[in-house]
Amino acid sequence: MHFDEEQIENLEKVYRINLINSCSGYKSANLIGSVSDEGINNLAVFSSITHLGSNPPLLGFFLRPTEIVPRHTYLNIKQNSFYTINSIQEEFADSAHHTSAKYEREISEFDITKITSENINGFPAPYVKSSSIKIGMKFVEEIKINYNKSRLIVGKIVELNVDDNLISKDGFLNLNKANIATVSGCDGYSFPKRNIRKGYQKPNKS
Amino acid sequence: MHFDEEQIENLEKVYRINLINSCSGYKSANLIGSVSDEGINNLAVFSSITHLGSNPPLLGFFLRPTEIVPRHTYLNIKQNSFYTINSIQEEFADSAHHTSAKYEREISEFDITKITSENINGFPAPYVKSSSIKIGMKFVEEIKINYNKSRLIVGKIVELNVDDNLISKDGFLNLNKANIATVSGCDGYSFPKRNIRKGYQKPNKS
Repeated sequence: MHFDEEQIENLEKVYRINLINSCSGYKSANLIGSVSDEGINNLAVFSSITHLGSNPPLLGFFLRPTEIVPRHTYLNIKQNSFYTINSIQEEFADSAHHTSAKYEREISEFDITKITSENINGFPAPYVKSSSIKIGMKFVEEIKINYNKSRLIVGKIVELNVDDNLISKDGFLNLNKANIATVSGCDGYSFPKRNIRKGYQKPNKS
Repeated sequence: MHFDEEQIENLEKVYRINLINSCSGYKSANLIGSVSDEGINNLAVFSSITHLGSNPPLLGFFLRPTEIVPRHTYLNIKQNSFYTINSIQEEFADSAHHTSAKYEREISEFDITKITSENINGFPAPYVKSSSIKIGMKFVEEIKINYNKSRLIVGKIVELNVDDNLISKDGFLNLNKANIATVSGCDGYSFPKRNIRKGYQKPNKS
């Protein structure tokens, strides 16, 4: 099946969203925890969290201008600088996905979904207790993408909490040991069971 | 296991790269095809390709300042504007991963890996023949991330070629039907076999 530029532009809206959202492959699935100045905890699912570098350790994620739920996350990060990124596992993926529903800012998705929050060593944003990987983040930079008015939010990893059994000798985390989710499109969840490490590649000798 | 900011900074280099690269979850796995002004086709594996919006249909990816292989991709895109993004399937994942080896610019990874290139309707960059999803891209914007001197390359989807059997009625692509890869860390490949769609979420009625 071939779609050219004009055909893509003229696709029915939901069809285009599903097609374009799923064509680039599997995405990370994480819950961002944040807190407002009024002390209301927010929790929202994101599929755009991306590795930007390991030294300094940076992660980014994208915000669309029109989205309503992620805007609470954005407001909280701008107010408080700190937020958390938490892995989603099969056991609570339904609840995690439900955080995409557009609740008012006064309502905490932790209360709605019964996902339990956790305070670790006084970190100033809520973690997800059941997550196998819990990352403490500090906001460092906001970058506008002119072409579609979306924003890249860049943060630095300031702490990392990981279940012991996931860590390999060389630091690699075996995500499949914790049934960690990956998302495709807007709502397709997979839980990879197996992982093959292919190693560092050097040029073949000619 | 808990790592604080200082502990992360002091980790052994390879350990830190593996840990930080895998902590944010599964990543997309794609091959970017591009061509130099001299007509040499380039092919390189990327795990940072991210959905930025569906109208206009935009995808972004990140380039580290120090990476050598991806710089060929970058130079080609700056010269020619057009490039392709191609899915990686289990059958040729070893060859796809081998494109991360640092070959000279005069050498085409298509030749080295025996991955077959494909010209579709005269599109000015090479596709990967065996890929189930082949995306034709046009460069639109380059954005610098000040904090670590990396770059976000933004492109518009100008054509899309997809195996018929992957497309659902509502436009969603079933990546698992083609054994499409996802990457964790630098070299961990998974091929999710199952996919659960959780649907659009509305707030619970109170």
